[in-house]
Amino acid sequence: VTVEDFEVVCRGLYRALCIREKNMQQSLQRFPKTPSQYLRAIEGEPWKPSDVGPVFTPPVKDGQDPFDTGDLPEDLGYHVQMKDGIVYVYADKAAAERNEPKNLPYPSLEHFIDDMNFLLVLIAQGPVKTYTHRRLKFLSSKFQVHEMLNEMDEMKELKNNPHRDFYNCRKVDTHIHAAACMNQKHLLRFIKKSYCVDADRVVYDAKGKQLTLKQLFQQLKLHPYDLTVDSLDVHAGRQTFQRFDKFNDKYNPVGASELRDLYLKTENAINGEYFATIIKEVGSDLEDAKYQHTEPRLSIYGRSPEEWAKLANWFNNHRVYSPNMKWMIQVPRIYDVFRSKNFLPHFGKMLEYIFVPVFEATINPQAHKELSVFLRHITGFDSVDDESKHSGHMFSTKSPKPEEWTSQKNPSYTYYIYYMYANILVLNNLRRQRGMNTFLFRPHCGEAGAITHLLAAFMTADNISHGLNLKKVRGAGCQEQPRHSRAGEVLTAASELCWQRLLTPNPALQEPLMEEYAIAAQVFKLSTCDMCEIARNSVLQCGLSHEEKVKFLGENYKEDGPDGNDIRKTNVAQIRVAYRYETWCYELNLIAEGLKNE
Amino acid sequence: VTVEDFEVVCRGLYRALCIREKNMQQSLQRFPKTPSQYLRAIEGEPWKPSDVGPVFTPPVKDGQDPFDTGDLPEDLGYHVQMKDGIVYVYADKAAAERNEPKNLPYPSLEHFIDDMNFLLVLIAQGPVKTYTHRRLKFLSSKFQVHEMLNEMDEMKELKNNPHRDFYNCRKVDTHIHAAACMNQKHLLRFIKKSYCVDADRVVYDAKGKQLTLKQLFQQLKLHPYDLTVDSLDVHAGRQTFQRFDKFNDKYNPVGASELRDLYLKTENAINGEYFATIIKEVGSDLEDAKYQHTEPRLSIYGRSPEEWAKLANWFNNHRVYSPNMKWMIQVPRIYDVFRSKNFLPHFGKMLEYIFVPVFEATINPQAHKELSVFLRHITGFDSVDDESKHSGHMFSTKSPKPEEWTSQKNPSYTYYIYYMYANILVLNNLRRQRGMNTFLFRPHCGEAGAITHLLAAFMTADNISHGLNLKKVRGAGCQEQPRHSRAGEVLTAASELCWQRLLTPNPALQEPLMEEYAIAAQVFKLSTCDMCEIARNSVLQCGLSHEEKVKFLGENYKEDGPDGNDIRKTNVAQIRVAYRYETWCYELNLIAEGLKNE
Repeated sequence: VTVEDFEVVCRGLYRALCIREKNMQQSLQRFPKTPSQYLRAIEGEPWKPSDVGPVFTPPVKDGQDPFDTGDLPEDLGYHVQMKDGIVYVYADKAAAERNEPKNLPYPSLEHFIDDMNFLLVLIAQGPVKTYTHRRLKFLSSKFQVHEMLNEMDEMKELKNNPHRDFYNCRKVDTHIHAAACMNQKHLLRFIKKSYCVDADRVVYDAKGKQLTLKQLFQQLKLHPYDLTVDSLDVHAGRQTFQRFDKFNDKYNPVGASELRDLYLKTENAINGEYFATIIKEVGSDLEDAKYQHTEPRLSIYGRSPEEWAKLANWFNNHRVYSPNMKWMIQVPRIYDVFRSKNFLPHFGKMLEYIFVPVFEATINPQAHKELSVFLRHITGFDSVDDESKHSGHMFSTKSPKPEEWTSQKNPSYTYYIYYMYANILVLNNLRRQRGMNTFLFRPHCGEAGAITHLLAAFMTADNISHGLNLKKVRGAGCQEQPRHSRAGEVLTAASELCWQRLLTPNPALQEPLMEEYAIAAQVFKLSTCDMCEIARNSVLQCGLSHEEKVKFLGENYKEDGPDGNDIRKTNVAQIRVAYRYETWCYELNLIAEGLKNE
Repeated sequence: VTVEDFEVVCRGLYRALCIREKNMQQSLQRFPKTPSQYLRAIEGEPWKPSDVGPVFTPPVKDGQDPFDTGDLPEDLGYHVQMKDGIVYVYADKAAAERNEPKNLPYPSLEHFIDDMNFLLVLIAQGPVKTYTHRRLKFLSSKFQVHEMLNEMDEMKELKNNPHRDFYNCRKVDTHIHAAACMNQKHLLRFIKKSYCVDADRVVYDAKGKQLTLKQLFQQLKLHPYDLTVDSLDVHAGRQTFQRFDKFNDKYNPVGASELRDLYLKTENAINGEYFATIIKEVGSDLEDAKYQHTEPRLSIYGRSPEEWAKLANWFNNHRVYSPNMKWMIQVPRIYDVFRSKNFLPHFGKMLEYIFVPVFEATINPQAHKELSVFLRHITGFDSVDDESKHSGHMFSTKSPKPEEWTSQKNPSYTYYIYYMYANILVLNNLRRQRGMNTFLFRPHCGEAGAITHLLAAFMTADNISHGLNLKKVRGAGCQEQPRHSRAGEVLTAASELCWQRLLTPNPALQEPLMEEYAIAAQVFKLSTCDMCEIARNSVLQCGLSHEEKVKFLGENYKEDGPDGNDIRKTNVAQIRVAYRYETWCYELNLIAEGLKNE
């Protein structure tokens, strides 16, 4: 690489990091201190610590009711209205008519498209490709060398660390769908148990005909005693590999959507009671296991304005709460399906159904008590669907606005991501003003499809699920910044590879999370230190509150590098954390060096 | 392959199968019906069904005491004496002096060496290598084709199979050492628990000084509260890969042999109480899980004549019994260690200590009540140690007899194997005459070292543990006959590979056996049918009684092919079993075809 090329590359990477920093800070998501300090140093500006970041609801205290509605803030009386796909907040209707929104940060589509186009060009540049490719290869070798030299010393640190081992390290399953959070055997046992108790209870509405559980099984020509994990067949196995179109079918127990409706849905003839009960059983198992947490996703589709109220009612009504669970909302990217059935007039309406109810509950919690409680327990939004579906649409300033998107075609991944991010940005700032918890944006990304997906997430997401395609992205520092802009390349590649291959479907034989770790340990030959590092990263990334993170990771968990690691709690060797930190600083420093002559 | 070469190969393979058939039948081990039928057809002889085979103690009936000594047979008054390393049985001492042993089958060293030399030549022959190599490649491709064509149909069979799935299929962990049968977390928890209860109990004898549990931990400068899985570090991980010399060190918790003595030994200041208690806890967990069985190994070293009595006393005294456990005896091949410390005058004495007590208890059970009860629960012998240690000795008719083996050098693997087999052969026939249960020979074999190890096992062993080196053995039909002369090539390779890589050490996070299956399923991309087939094979191979096998596999489990498979119990598709059987018959038929012109 020539000096000139090197400078070009560094300029590009510098700007890429600035883009991410700006977007994360505006949307109250996380951008770590260390790269911020380097960016300020490059600019010759002093670095100032900032307290801007996400807020998660503290854990429920002893004796406190997680569903308590006593302390809900008062009505602000604000008016909300969607414009160009983004919810704007106004003092009142009159202000809306005058087009005078409240003073909140609103996203700028023009800037976003500018930044995106810059990054698109950047990752296509020859010097950037060469440079980042080389650095990544180097980082991979460097980690191998580190391991060979320090493996024994790391192990020694862990052996001398009293009372803590991998078993009593906190670990979070950061990527699980609520309908798949139980293992198959659990679901099977639950179905059989429900039949013992509820055979004669009316549980199903077949086009107006009320069916008891017994009648339902008769209609399906099944007896629960004969049901097996094979016939249930809810796990996505070899047949569904890379077949996202089949994924939903697979989640029909016995291929019968009736059973899915009855056992795995929040809305049905029994108001989702069975689904709530199974989830609470999973939660109680986690509480028994003590050190395991999970972040299940519940769906909001955006096809009707009542979805949020119904889901919140299910959550409150069945008291679906466990201290070991933090909730996420997943939004499937299936506008095209709803539009073709004429459920929606345009894409803007879908965004409206997804976001307006949350804004309204934020402005007037007392009028939306159940939803306000539910939102307290939600820590982020996910965007889900088959990434390999190609929309053919290129997002630009000339793209139709969401309200103009009346076509039956689905918008592109980036279009979806931008509008989710944009609304979360406004929402988070409003909620912060009210002292409420905020949300992370953690989309499924990089599982398949174009690498532009990863670009969009780099610009908008706190962290992502999957990321397998990270391997393909050479430029834009994407790979230096995955998952909370932390974790070294090797670990990321390893963990992403295993999450992709192993976590997606859920054919767990025992405790899903521990099984994943056992498999990953064998497949990638992970040491105890590796496993504990992954566990620590899972806690850092997740939506557990500040108070819980202090308890699980140590007081200084927000510090980068060894200062932030409390081995007594994490069982991660300081040698390892120091290696990660030094490597990270070295790479950032290289960029700074490249820009010295400017 | 020319016609002539083909005939040479078939002659060789025919004789190899005959050798195994003869040795298995003489020692009351298993040789399946199908190859016997082909061998008789080749010889133009009629095939006659035989009832000769192993006998395992039936399960304890309700209300029956597994330690009952009420029905022990009477004293036969026989005299036993070792000659040339083999225990001979005489009517009395006078008969021994006259050299007139009882009429039992005794092994012939000359025939064994003849057969061995034949097999050694056979596997070195060019045509045999070419032929078997090609057949194995063909069989591997054939299985792949089978899978691609029949995967869906196999799955359909399983889906239509009511009530049975992989979870409620019986499965046996056929390869586990008693001291490693609990997972690390379990051992850790047990140590902490024992400290809570027994801190002031005298549990250790440090060269005459009695120590309480508290004093012992003080001496080790440890507090149980601080103990972790890392500091316990009993699992053989990356550091011990291919380092058998370190394996035993690894099994010292916290690297302290004191803790190993206290918690994982049958002989110590508390008479092995803790070890018995942990094992019973493992047994009770298995009973709760219901469908899992295990075959733990206990060691007999052959360094003193009292070992058997002491082990039997431990077993009876602590009532170490679980219906889900079948016991095996493992004999470490460490004569050289004992000889160098002058515990033994020659190798014959080691064999004497290993086998004579068992013969005596067989002849006069009333005089050896505890041992007789213990032997009822034992189903086989294992031979263990580092196979990669090279002895430099070549077993031949000119080798020193065991009584003449006074050198400090260790005998070769084959020498050990032959003398264990030879004594088990006599012992089994004597026990059969008395209506007692018999023993299988199931050595560790093919984990490392020369391929002659596999040859020795082909001649003497009912089945083996490991067998990774099977890949290297091209001739002698070894690979067509692994594990009970059953199981197709592909499955064997897969399962062996995973047992080798995964089962040996025991770093299980949860239930060890289920975890192994979960890992194997991911690593080898096993289908449910594959997993259930492995589970079924584990039951076939193990030392569960006829009555239990009927219950777990179906009435006709002894039949080869689909007739022997009861899908309602095994959840293995008939299509799969038919494929295995047809493939097997096809290979045997090829040999018969090659010999037609003779």
